[in-house]
Formats: sequence, C-alpha cells, structure tokens
Amino acid sequence: MGHEASGIVDHVGSGVSSLEAGDRVAIEPGYPCRRCNTCKRGQYNLCPGMKFAACPPDDHGTLTRLFKVPEDFCYKLPDNIGLEEGVMVEPLSVAVHAARVGKIQHGDTVVILGSGTIGLLSAAVARTFGAKKVVAVDILEHKLQFAQRWNGSNTFMPDPRSSPASNAHRLVKDNELVLGADVVVEASGAASSINLGVHTLRPGGSFVQVGVVGANVEFPIQQVAERELHILGSYRYGAGDFQTALEMLSTKQIIVKDLISSTVPFEEATVAWEMTKRGQGIKNLIRGAAL
Amino acid sequence: MGHEASGIVDHVGSGVSSLEAGDRVAIEPGYPCRRCNTCKRGQYNLCPGMKFAACPPDDHGTLTRLFKVPEDFCYKLPDNIGLEEGVMVEPLSVAVHAARVGKIQHGDTVVILGSGTIGLLSAAVARTFGAKKVVAVDILEHKLQFAQRWNGSNTFMPDPRSSPASNAHRLVKDNELVLGADVVVEASGAASSINLGVHTLRPGGSFVQVGVVGANVEFPIQQVAERELHILGSYRYGAGDFQTALEMLSTKQIIVKDLISSTVPFEEATVAWEMTKRGQGIKNLIRGAAL
Amino acid sequence: MGHEASGIVDHVGSGVSSLEAGDRVAIEPGYPCRRCNTCKRGQYNLCPGMKFAACPPDDHGTLTRLFKVPEDFCYKLPDNIGLEEGVMVEPLSVAVHAARVGKIQHGDTVVILGSGTIGLLSAAVARTFGAKKVVAVDILEHKLQFAQRWNGSNTFMPDPRSSPASNAHRLVKDNELVLGADVVVEASGAASSINLGVHTLRPGGSFVQVGVVGANVEFPIQQVAERELHILGSYRYGAGDFQTALEMLSTKQIIVKDLISSTVPFEEATVAWEMTKRGQGIKNLIRGAAL
Amino acid sequence: MGHEASGIVDHVGSGVSSLEAGDRVAIEPGYPCRRCNTCKRGQYNLCPGMKFAACPPDDHGTLTRLFKVPEDFCYKLPDNIGLEEGVMVEPLSVAVHAARVGKIQHGDTVVILGSGTIGLLSAAVARTFGAKKVVAVDILEHKLQFAQRWNGSNTFMPDPRSSPASNAHRLVKDNELVLGADVVVEASGAASSINLGVHTLRPGGSFVQVGVVGANVEFPIQQVAERELHILGSYRYGAGDFQTALEMLSTKQIIVKDLISSTVPFEEATVAWEMTKRGQGIKNLIRGAAL
Repeated sequence: MGHEASGIVDHVGSGVSSLEAGDRVAIEPGYPCRRCNTCKRGQYNLCPGMKFAACPPDDHGTLTRLFKVPEDFCYKLPDNIGLEEGVMVEPLSVAVHAARVGKIQHGDTVVILGSGTIGLLSAAVARTFGAKKVVAVDILEHKLQFAQRWNGSNTFMPDPRSSPASNAHRLVKDNELVLGADVVVEASGAASSINLGVHTLRPGGSFVQVGVVGANVEFPIQQVAERELHILGSYRYGAGDFQTALEMLSTKQIIVKDLISSTVPFEEATVAWEMTKRGQGIKNLIRGAAL
Repeated sequence: MGHEASGIVDHVGSGVSSLEAGDRVAIEPGYPCRRCNTCKRGQYNLCPGMKFAACPPDDHGTLTRLFKVPEDFCYKLPDNIGLEEGVMVEPLSVAVHAARVGKIQHGDTVVILGSGTIGLLSAAVARTFGAKKVVAVDILEHKLQFAQRWNGSNTFMPDPRSSPASNAHRLVKDNELVLGADVVVEASGAASSINLGVHTLRPGGSFVQVGVVGANVEFPIQQVAERELHILGSYRYGAGDFQTALEMLSTKQIIVKDLISSTVPFEEATVAWEMTKRGQGIKNLIRGAAL
Repeated sequence: MGHEASGIVDHVGSGVSSLEAGDRVAIEPGYPCRRCNTCKRGQYNLCPGMKFAACPPDDHGTLTRLFKVPEDFCYKLPDNIGLEEGVMVEPLSVAVHAARVGKIQHGDTVVILGSGTIGLLSAAVARTFGAKKVVAVDILEHKLQFAQRWNGSNTFMPDPRSSPASNAHRLVKDNELVLGADVVVEASGAASSINLGVHTLRPGGSFVQVGVVGANVEFPIQQVAERELHILGSYRYGAGDFQTALEMLSTKQIIVKDLISSTVPFEEATVAWEMTKRGQGIKNLIRGAAL
Repeated sequence: MGHEASGIVDHVGSGVSSLEAGDRVAIEPGYPCRRCNTCKRGQYNLCPGMKFAACPPDDHGTLTRLFKVPEDFCYKLPDNIGLEEGVMVEPLSVAVHAARVGKIQHGDTVVILGSGTIGLLSAAVARTFGAKKVVAVDILEHKLQFAQRWNGSNTFMPDPRSSPASNAHRLVKDNELVLGADVVVEASGAASSINLGVHTLRPGGSFVQVGVVGANVEFPIQQVAERELHILGSYRYGAGDFQTALEMLSTKQIIVKDLISSTVPFEEATVAWEMTKRGQGIKNLIRGAAL
C-alpha cells in the first residue's frame, strides 16, 4: 500500500536534466544503494540497502502530497497515457519481471495461477512475449470470466475436492498441454494453487512465484527433483521493467483501463481500502489532493 | 539398486566400432528414445521414453551376469581406473550433473546437505569446479569428520532444537558466508535439511535438490519469492557427465577409493544390502561372478 | 537446392506410428547420428555425422519422386496449410533458429540485413518474438518496399559511397535506436552489410550470421572487443524449430503466400532455377510429378 | 598506461566506512554513472558515462601522487599481498573477466593466443576455472617456455608459412582436442592469430577477443556461420572481477611475482616504458614517490 503511484513533478534538483516541473511521471517506488555487488551484478531489486516506499504502519510511501524520488526512477508518461493508467505501470512491471524470470519464450504454453491484478497482467504479458496458449486459473467464476473476456485466456477452475495432482492432470488434458506447461506464474499465494502449478509443469519447466506468499507451504519437492523443474522467485522489478511496461501501455499492446474499477479522492482513501478488502473491483485508485 | 555398475565387454554387435570384447567399461544404466523433443533439446535424462536399469522388485538391472547396453552408454575405463572405482563413476556423475544444474562457478561458496555418498562426491566436485569454500552438513559427527578429512570441507552440524532459519543463520555466520551461500546442494532428502538449505542461500542463490526425496515437505516458499531464489531439480545425469566423472578419476582430481568400504562376492549380494541398510560403511560393492 | 520440400507420405516402415500413407508433411531434410555428444548436448544441427539432403552436383536431395526420411523429421501439415506453404516451413525454420540464436526478446530492436527470403522471414519472426522495432536493410528499393508492405518493417538503404560506420550511424539515428540495435540478423552475406551490422549494435548487442557467406571478410573486430558484442553463427535449425515454424503458419502469425512468386512443374525445374538466378521473384517452387 | 595501480589510502571522505588512511589497496581505475540501464543491467564496464583513468597523452591516470577513487572501487589488500602484487590485480581482473565472458567450465579445453601478461594470466585463470587442458600459443620461443614453466601449459608455435587453418589443424591434432577447443582466448590482437583461433574451435565453441586490437582484420565469418561459433568481446572487468582476482592471489592459486620483471622509482618512470617498448621483461613496475 502506497507503493503504486503516478504523479506530477513539483520541482527538480539542480543535477536533474531529463525532467522538469509539470512532467507527468510513473514512479518506481524504491531505489538501491547502487554500490554493492548485488547492484553491480544487475540485481538491484535484491540490494540489501534498498530504500523502498511504504512499509505500513509507519511509512505510507507515496500516499502523501510530495514524494522525493531519484531522477532515474521516475518515468515520463507518454502523452497517450493518463495518470490513472500511469499507476498501473507498477503492477504491470511486476508482471513483466515475472515473465523475464520465467524466461517466457515465443511458443510457450503458460499457466497463470490467480486472476487478481498481477495474474491478469501476467496473462497479458505472457501473450506479448509470444506465448501460444495462456491458461488462467482461479476459484471464482467471475474472475475467470473476466480473464477470458479481457485477454482471451483459456480458463480453468480447480475442483477443491480433488488433489492438486489430479487437478493438474485435468488442466493439462483439457488444454492439450501434452507433457505439461512450459511456464507457470503463481500469483495467488495459496498452497493448493502452488501445488497445482508444480504438477502442471512439463519436465524441465519453470514455475515463477511472484508477490507475497505466506511463510511456508506443503510442497511437492519430489516433483522438482525427479522432473528437473525450476522453482524461481520473482521480486518486484529490475532494470528495464518499468520502461517495458510503459511501452506496452503506450503501444496499446495491453489496455489496463478495464482493470481500474474506481477512483476515490485522497480524503476518502480509506474507502478504496475497504472496497479492496471486500474484494470489490480489481484496482481501486486514490486521486491525490492536487490533481 | 542395480544401477551402479562397471563390467567387462563380453561381445559386441556388428555395428559397434569403439569397443571390443574384453574392454573394461563403466556403464550408464539407462538410454533414451533419442527421437523426442526432450532428447533433441539436450535433456535426455528427462525423456519420457527412457529405459532405465533396475526398477525393483521386478527388474534388477545390472545385477546380472550379462547386461545389454548401447555402445554410446558404455565408457571405456582408462588403465589407471579399476573396476571397483569404475562403479563409482555412476554416483560421481550424479554429483557432476548436480553441480552443472546449480552452475557452480569459480569462487562460489557451496553448502552440501547430507554427507552420504552423493553428498561427499558433490563436495569433491564443487572443489574441482573452483568453489572457494565448501561446507558439509550432516547430523552425524563421524560423517562430518570423514567429509572434513576426505576433502577438507568445513563442517556444520545443525542443532535439532533450533529452527532451520536459526541454524542457517549460525551456518552463514560461522563460515563467513556474508549474504549467504551461492549454491546449496541438497543430498539428504530430509525436510529440516531442505529448509535449512533454503535459508542458507544469498539473495539470488541456487538450491539443487538431487536424488530421491519424499513426496512433500513443509517448504519456505516466501523465501524463494522475496529473495529470488532458484530451486532446481537435478535428475541422474546427461550429456558429458559420465565422461567428466571418468576424467576426474583418471586425473586423480577425486580419489574415490576411500569411499569403498567393502566388496562382497555376487553370491553374498544381500550382505552388501544389509550393511548398507544398517548404515555400515559408505559404499558396499558386489563383485560379479565372472571377475 | 533440393533441401526445401513438402510432400505426401507414400508408405511407412513397420515401426512408424505417427504417420501413414497419404499424410501431407513438411520435411526436415537432414538427420543426425543421435549418439555423439554434440547430439546429446542438444545441438544436433552441428553433429559431425549429419546426413543432409542435397549436396549438388551429385546429390539432388528431395528433387526426386520418392525420398526417405526418419519419422521424427517429418512434420504433418495441419489442414489449413497447403503443400506450397509447406515448402516454406524449411526457410521459416532457418529464421526461427536465427531468432533463437540471437535470443530476440520482447521489446528488442532488431535490424535485418538483406531482404531476400531468409531476411523477410527473419523480420516476420522477430515481430512474433515481440521485437518492438524491426528495420529491414537492402540495396534494392523494390525489396525494401516489399518488406515494408509485407510486415510493416522500417526500411534502410545504405549509401554505397559512405562507410559502414557512417551508414550505421545514420540507421541508428533515423530509426531512433538510441545506443544501437539489440540484435542484428545478417542474411545477405555481403561484406559491407556485415560491417554495417556490427556498427549498428548497442554495446553488448548480438549479431547473428545466418546462412551461407563467402569464406573471409574484412571485419571490425575492435568493435567486438571494445563494446563486448556477440557475433553468433546460426546454422540451419534444431530442436523445435520446425514445429514453431509450422505453428506460426497454421495460426496465421506469418502469411507466406505472398513470398511464393511462381510454381513450375517438375519437368521444368530448371526454369525455376533460371528465374531465381535472374533475381526474378522471391521463391519459385517446383511441383512434384505426382501432385 | 596509468591504469594499473595499487596504493595507500591518504585520506577518506566523510561517508566512507570501509577504508581508512593507511590502508593498502588495489585500485579499479574507472567508475560508471551507476544510473543508466547499462549499469542497472549489470554491465557497468559498458556504461557510456564511464570515467576511466588514463587517456594519454592528456590524462596520466594513476601516474600521480594522489588519486581520487570511489570507496567501492578500492579493494583492501590482504596482509599477504604486497603493493607490487597489488598492481597485478588489474590485469588479472581482465583475465578473470575474459574467462567469464567465455564461460570457461570445468573440463574445457582452452587455447590462449599470445603469451604476454594478459595471455599468461588468462592461462592461469583458465586452470583455476577447471580447464582440463590449456594450450599457450605464441610466435616467440622464450615466451612459450615461460608459459610452459610458469603454469604447465601445453605450447604451440604457429608456422608462419602455413595458413591459419592448417596451423589450427596441427594444433588440434598435436594437443588431442578432438573436434577442437571449447574456448579460445585471444590476447595478441594479431590478425593471423585471430584466424588461427577461430579455426581451432569445436562446433559451437566460444572465441573471446580481449584487450586492444587494430580496427579491422580479415576474418573467417563462414566458419562462424557454418559451425555456430560465438565470437565474444571482453572489455576490462565488471562486478566481482577485482574481488575474484584478489582472492586468487591471496589464496596462492596464482603466483604473479614471477611476472614482475623490474621495479623502477617514480622519477625514472620513462625507463620502465622504454624497457616495455623493447619487449624487455613481462611487467615493469613504477614505484610511487611516497612508498
């Protein structure tokens, strides 16, 4: 909360040359130390010195009138992207990063677990990466219908009375995935979903765990060993992810407007939270005081 | 059982040119279909059509007087490798494969979980791949002493009353691994060991699950997501692994004699099993009738 | 010549289960030994024992009424792909392989040198792999016009009086490639084109040399060293390339009909050659006697 | 000239915590902008904004009494490394970087072209990366003798009357490289040597061009295409290279003392140049005024 934001530049420091007051920007809400070996190796999202916006309850991140960001973590919005869509660059970058971690290739079959914001965006990103078949998985019928309508995904609803392995078997069969999926992106965090995902992979396939999950889950490690699976973590975003996300929006490869369910004024921010908590809408935005 | 073997060529088919009767060979105990996409992609160990020796109780694999193998899965033993050492080429190839799956590089810090045959060989292979520090982990003091004596590994015994996370913390601190290990090779299959291993990794590090494990374990998936870990399965061996293992032996980079605890005649094969079952010795070999 | 072909199965061997007489197939015109380390590593196109169709003047490959192919190098044509389009699977597979060698990613900028069959197909493949900008380069205006019309490429005609470096500078500037192209696919074989391509890359970019070139060229090796470029050879096709090419056709991602300029009867095969030699048309096909 | 240096910290800025006056350090003589996408991707050596020491004739880099360096580009020397050896960390890092670019693996066969400082160090690094066979190539007998004596390399002297292809054929045969070398490191910059190197590779092998070469060479591009070779540039050093080099020295994996031919006082710096220009010695060092 407080880490997804777009905004208007109020003023810039003396060394800033690529931005000026009045520019509309998407904001990458964290910046690394730039000096440690993790940064130098190209994995700044894993930098132990990362300063990230929004660690509630003390730090509300971008939920404030003025927010200070280094120049190179601000991304000018093209003219055809509004501030509301601009907010979506952050979650879209999460999906782009996950697709890169999973090395989604042209022709891959991809299963997306969970059809919330990150799941929906991951399905859309998989398409732009050339996936030939995308299967959206969720336990709520209306979410699957949205996924199907929004980006033409195949859909699958697991049977809660069946085991993850037998649900996986049915998913693979119904969607003609032959030996299994090339890549699974897990964006639900649910234990049963994680297990379903692992069983869905072909030998040598890749499973990407994205976003926040509970600490521990019962996990089919034998599957990993015997079929040489790759279980890969994807954390936030790194070099080039915001630019790619912005470009997907500006070229209309991905249309995020339908994911924005409502926008409330800053004074009513808690209303957005309440709606989200109730599972109402997909993304509920908060408009800053000055806009 | 029945998949680790060396032998002497009895006779060869008419198309065989690189071997002849009397040649001493190490045997790769399975061969793939050579025709499916998994084979063609270079992952023949994952071939759905693999014919593998020894699926007890019905198939005893190489535990027989004559055994038929394709020419290219027989590896001539150099003069300085005896038939007993030749048996060790199979488990050593498992360790070589795991090191390749984990992409162990010069200068890496590597933690090996379990100090049985595969663990010991993995520690030795990590050294030959240039690992700067190798830490052997086991719950039995005499196994750690052997690991320390045999290849100069650091050693670590987890405290069963502590959590995997706090054992990992102590392992990292005692061995000065800074942010954590670059690569973990898990060769014990124990749930607590798997958890210890995951917590031991640095952000972005790789965990290799090798060999047989129980179906499911309680697993710290949150660690994987938040620190972008790679959990990688390693299954048997693939292209070049037997040759590399053979070369490690013939150039004396790895000396396996000390791992051979006993050799019993073919007629007393069950004695070897009983000893192994009791945890007596490291490798107990069976000598074929004709040798 | 004689290595691009589709056909109808006349009869099959006793071990064949996936094909039967009458099936329409695309033909991969070579098969490897399946046993050497190069094959096992997943690079069968580099197998020293490769048996490849058509080594003129003695071997005319598929230019014959009956041609013997292993089952797994025959690819059944989907109902919506005709035999003429089926011929194009071979050159399309060359383009797919080159894109894989160059690791073309979503969002990459790609420059294609030469707008003959392989160049045109490489441009189309780059698009399906998610390239955000594709620039077709040729010295003939009508070829560039075709490239522009056929797949919406940007186009660039080098000035023969300028150096490769200054042509590259203009290409990068006109097409707003910032630091340079991410990937260059060289499908012309001309020395000036090769040099132009190398100078066009961004630091760390990849240049793919595809197809047949003259033995030696004057080459800007200093560029390679000082900007850490990758110069990569791409030879024929490997695991999965024919399947991917077939799928691109059957899903209409790539429409190859426009590339087929003419089809002559088998008896007039030399006419097709003469036309091709004169630079007339793009692909001139020969229809088999029985069709 | 002026980019290889060690020194003693004179004083530190207020934000520096890991170094203090009196510390002996190796100096990485350039630092990047830390903000562009090239830096963030993990390729800071290719950063367009790199500030590199020593661009003669105007900038003499570290050839000065006091030199300003960012904290994270200074590497504290362990107690067992003297300032003279400390100078060698820079060229050793070049060799480490080249080995990483070429992805030298355990068991590889490696050919090193040129037996000057970088060539010798590259041969030594190849060994520490696990290369099973290293062949040093030079046209001067005494250099080959040194290479053989210093790190046990095989040696090869090309016959200037033979073609690069036939010299390569002889090299491969004499050293039993079977299909050819896995990796070639080119550290001579000579056109004939570059051609020899390309012809020496096995199908699919990697050629690393390191260091400074003349602009253009006659180059066997057909070899690259038909055998899917990788021609890779290696430029200076990147993340972790200095640390790895330091560690190779402190653990005595590589002993560089023998490469230091002489050390002259700062006032006689030009003497060192003259000796180097005459080809006298391997490395001729200059001692700073204050030491």
